[in-house]
Amino acid sequence: MAPPSGERLAPFNVFGMAASGNCHKVRMALDLLGLPYRWHEIDLMQGQTRTPQFLAMNPGGQVPVLGIDEATFLSESGAILCYLGEGTALWPSEALARARMFQWMFFEQYSHEPCIAVARFIMVFLKQPDHARLPELHRRGGLALDVMEHHLQGAEFFPGPRLSLADLALFAYTHRADEGGFDLARYPAVQAWLARCQRQPGISVMAPMPPAP
Amino acid sequence: MAPPSGERLAPFNVFGMAASGNCHKVRMALDLLGLPYRWHEIDLMQGQTRTPQFLAMNPGGQVPVLGIDEATFLSESGAILCYLGEGTALWPSEALARARMFQWMFFEQYSHEPCIAVARFIMVFLKQPDHARLPELHRRGGLALDVMEHHLQGAEFFPGPRLSLADLALFAYTHRADEGGFDLARYPAVQAWLARCQRQPGISVMAPMPPAP
Repeated sequence: MAPPSGERLAPFNVFGMAASGNCHKVRMALDLLGLPYRWHEIDLMQGQTRTPQFLAMNPGGQVPVLGIDEATFLSESGAILCYLGEGTALWPSEALARARMFQWMFFEQYSHEPCIAVARFIMVFLKQPDHARLPELHRRGGLALDVMEHHLQGAEFFPGPRLSLADLALFAYTHRADEGGFDLARYPAVQAWLARCQRQPGISVMAPMPPAP
Repeated sequence: MAPPSGERLAPFNVFGMAASGNCHKVRMALDLLGLPYRWHEIDLMQGQTRTPQFLAMNPGGQVPVLGIDEATFLSESGAILCYLGEGTALWPSEALARARMFQWMFFEQYSHEPCIAVARFIMVFLKQPDHARLPELHRRGGLALDVMEHHLQGAEFFPGPRLSLADLALFAYTHRADEGGFDLARYPAVQAWLARCQRQPGISVMAPMPPAP
């Protein structure tokens, strides 16, 4: 099982939106692993995920998509992280640690992103701080941050002790959570972890979300 | 990297609710792999995921939890499937096929379960066919079924050609989707795949959801 880095000459094509955390995860993985890529900016708001060309790459109509070759496309940020990171230093070598990495990656997609990313979208893009969904998103997103805070009181990373794909997955929307109305000052261990992540080469802050036209 | 089946003598402990698809995935994986386990029925509705004992196993307060030994617990159904299934016939041996398995498992947790499982919960447990959230859940759940139908027009399984962990993940709530108000007759390829899955030893239908007291 060779990681893609071991056999790769041509650049990957990434179809994504720079201000999307799910897409930013893929950028960080490629940067961190030193893999060549071309970024193709896709504007969701202009319907660019609904064109026949885009739906041929991903019938689910979501970014990011990784173009592996001219005819091979992979979607779902978590799956792209696994494809790029398997067998590298971001992939724990021990079975239980690897399962815990998956645990945090599924946690991120099920309990974190649907609250923290969606609150940011409503507040930054839609400019609706009085949106009816926000209180429930803030309640559930706060629970996700509580779970992260609890873990980080006893670990340096997810799952720890070294940076893994789960850190990339969780960093993406957590470091912009304030834009969705979450007060990160309430989560000191999360803040310290964000700072630790940012000292890793390849980890970068995400482009700001453009306001609606 | 030995799969847990290669080193396992003591039974696993599963803390789950029989009528939960996320828990049923774990049961099917254990049955299919012939791994010994004890099932501990947890009643969400009676607050049994909110006790200090349960939160010590999973601070996120969700079932299923896999007890690996007396002090080691793993949560998130997708992560448990990976832990149990890695290195077995349910785990594609080729890197791209493995990434596509992850793609479908993340798709299930992000785009399928939050609609199809939640609609079932509202209609069966809450007995509220007029619930305000149902039209949007049916719209988005229908899109997830469309994506599955599209894939299955060219493949026997997820990702294909053989049964993988992604099939277990998707089978769990899809085979009960009718209980949430989805008409599976509109998805002939999905219906044929459900029948193929049910011919595999270890794949079983889920316990019905008990009505509210």
